[in-house]
Amino acid sequence: MKSTSDTMPPTVAATSSVTVVSGGVGAARFLTGLLNVIDPAKVTAVVNTGDDTQLHGLSISPDLDTITYTLAGATDPERGWGLRNETWTAMAALQRFEAVRPNGSAAATRWFNLGDQDLATHFYRTARLTEGASLTEVTEEITTAWGLGLRLVPMTDERRTTVVTTATEGDVSFQDYFVRLRHSVPITSVRFDGVAQLSQSARFALTNAEIVVIAPSNPLVSIGPIRSLDGTDDILSARRDSVVAVSPIVGGAALKGPAARMMTELGHESSVVGVARLYAGIASALVIDPADAHLVDAVVAEGMRCIVTPSVMSTPEIAQTLGEVTIAAVSAP
Amino acid sequence: MKSTSDTMPPTVAATSSVTVVSGGVGAARFLTGLLNVIDPAKVTAVVNTGDDTQLHGLSISPDLDTITYTLAGATDPERGWGLRNETWTAMAALQRFEAVRPNGSAAATRWFNLGDQDLATHFYRTARLTEGASLTEVTEEITTAWGLGLRLVPMTDERRTTVVTTATEGDVSFQDYFVRLRHSVPITSVRFDGVAQLSQSARFALTNAEIVVIAPSNPLVSIGPIRSLDGTDDILSARRDSVVAVSPIVGGAALKGPAARMMTELGHESSVVGVARLYAGIASALVIDPADAHLVDAVVAEGMRCIVTPSVMSTPEIAQTLGEVTIAAVSAP
Repeated sequence: MKSTSDTMPPTVAATSSVTVVSGGVGAARFLTGLLNVIDPAKVTAVVNTGDDTQLHGLSISPDLDTITYTLAGATDPERGWGLRNETWTAMAALQRFEAVRPNGSAAATRWFNLGDQDLATHFYRTARLTEGASLTEVTEEITTAWGLGLRLVPMTDERRTTVVTTATEGDVSFQDYFVRLRHSVPITSVRFDGVAQLSQSARFALTNAEIVVIAPSNPLVSIGPIRSLDGTDDILSARRDSVVAVSPIVGGAALKGPAARMMTELGHESSVVGVARLYAGIASALVIDPADAHLVDAVVAEGMRCIVTPSVMSTPEIAQTLGEVTIAAVSAP
Repeated sequence: MKSTSDTMPPTVAATSSVTVVSGGVGAARFLTGLLNVIDPAKVTAVVNTGDDTQLHGLSISPDLDTITYTLAGATDPERGWGLRNETWTAMAALQRFEAVRPNGSAAATRWFNLGDQDLATHFYRTARLTEGASLTEVTEEITTAWGLGLRLVPMTDERRTTVVTTATEGDVSFQDYFVRLRHSVPITSVRFDGVAQLSQSARFALTNAEIVVIAPSNPLVSIGPIRSLDGTDDILSARRDSVVAVSPIVGGAALKGPAARMMTELGHESSVVGVARLYAGIASALVIDPADAHLVDAVVAEGMRCIVTPSVMSTPEIAQTLGEVTIAAVSAP
C-alpha cells in the first residue's frame, strides 16, 4: 500500500505502530485525524463486520466501505455517507419489481440505498469472495484501489452477524434495525451469531501493535462484535496498559447514531462512566470531551486514567489533536 | 399476466396457442411481429438460457432479458440491445479495481457491459434465486413487472451452459466468445455442459401448444441448447406437422450475429438448405426470404415444405406479416 508519510510528517509517536479497533463513521473520522499525525503505514484498523449483509446477491461491508471512502476523501460531505456525486439509477429501477415481489421476499429491497458508483465496490468484493479470496485479501485490494495508506483488516473472515432483538419486531439484522427501522424502536438485547474467529490479521494487529486505540464507535454494536470474537478481550486485557479508548458518548449523547439510546435500553449508563465500565477491563485510559470533565473522578473510580480533550470532531484540527492526545495517553513519556 | 388482447384484435389463428422456441434478438423481433397478430395470452416463448452467466455475483440471463426489454418497448433503438436512456456509472466505477485484480481473476470484468437500469433486473433475479425461487418463477415475476402479455419460460431451471471451443483460446463460455472475443475467432465445436432437464413449463409448452415456431435464432447456440435438453427433439419430432421454423439465414448470411460463420466452421452449409438439414427432423415447414427463393426445391428435397415471405424484419409491418405467414404455414386451412 502507498504510504503518504513523505508528504505528511508525523508529529507524534513516529515509530509507534497503532491498531484502531473500529466501527464505521466515528472511527473513520478519528482515523482521518490520526493519519495526519502518524505515518499511515504504521496504522492498522481492525474493522467491525457484524453489520455485513447480502443484498441483491452482493456482499456488503458497510463499516469497511465507510472507512475506505472517508479516508479516500470520497465521501459525500452533505449526506455524510456514500460517495460524492453519487447517482441512484439502479435503485430507482428496482422499484418496478416491488409490485411483483412475493410476500416475505427481500428482493427489490430499496431501503438500503446503494449508489451506482458504490455498487462497483460490492461487485468487486462479491466476485473476489466467490472466487475464494478471503475478506481480508479483498479488503486489501479494495483499499489499495482507493489509494489508502493504512491497513484495513476485517475483524473476521467468517460470518459473524449482529442480531438486534427489538421490542416490536423481534430479532432483526443490524441493518434492519439501523437503516430500515432508523434505530427508532426499543431494543431488548444484542447478540452475535456465527463463527467467533478473529481473522489472522486482526489477531496479529491487536496483539503486536505498540498501541491499541478503541475508536469512538458504538461500544455495543460496533466494538461489541469485535469483542465477541474468541481472544479479543483476552488479548486486550493482557496488554491493557497500552490500550486507550475514546468515548463515543459526549454529554450523555452519542457523537452519532443510537449508541446512547442502546446503552440505556440495554442497562448501561449513557455517559462516559458507562463507557468506562464497558472498557475498564481491556483499556487503561479513556479520552473524554470537556463537556464531561465533571465526570473525570467517576471514570477514574472505574479504574481508568482519564484524559480530557475535545472529541467532537467538527473540524480536521480537532480530529488531529484528538489523535495526538489519544496516542500520547498510552505512549511512553 | 395482463393480456393486451382487448386493444390488439388478433388477425389470425385467434384460437391457436403458439410456443416459440427462442434465442435473443432475432426471436424478440419475431415475437414483436407475432404479438401484433395473435392474442399474447396464447403465446409462450421457450427461451435459451445456455448463455446465462454469473458476473459480480449476479445471475444474468441475456436472452430472457433481450426478449423482455424488446417486447416492453424499452430497448435502446440505436444500440439494438440494452435499455433506452441507459447509464453506465457502475461499470465505469469498476475500472478502479482493474489494477488490483489478481491475475486470473474475473472480478471487475467490464467487457460485459451492464447498464445501471439493467442492473435492477439482475438484482431482482439474483435475490429471488437466492431465496430459492426457480428461474421460471422469477422470469414470470420479471415479465409481469415489465407488463408483458405473453409467457416467457426458461428452457430449464437447471444450469445448462453453452461452451464454445475456439481455435485460439480453447474452451470459453458463450459470452466470452460472443462479447469479449466479438465472435471473431474460429471455432471447432459447441457443446452444452450441465443438467439436461427441460423445465416443466417448457416441456408443457412444447408438448401442448397447437403450433410450435422455431424462431429465426442461431440454430447452433440459441436453438441448439434447447434441443440439447432431454426430450426436446422427441417432443418436436412427434408433432412435426405442427412445427414451423423461420430461417435465420438469408442469402447465405445471418440476420444478426455469427450464425453463418459458425455453421460453416462446424461443417454445416450456411444457407437455408443447411438450416433445413438441421431442422427437417423436428419441423415440417421452413419459412425463407425471397432472396433465397431459388433454393425452395433444395429445401423441399430435405423433406420440408418451404414458404417464401420477407423475413428481414426491418419494419414492424414485415415482422407482423412474417408472424402471420409463419403461423398460417402449419395452421389447419
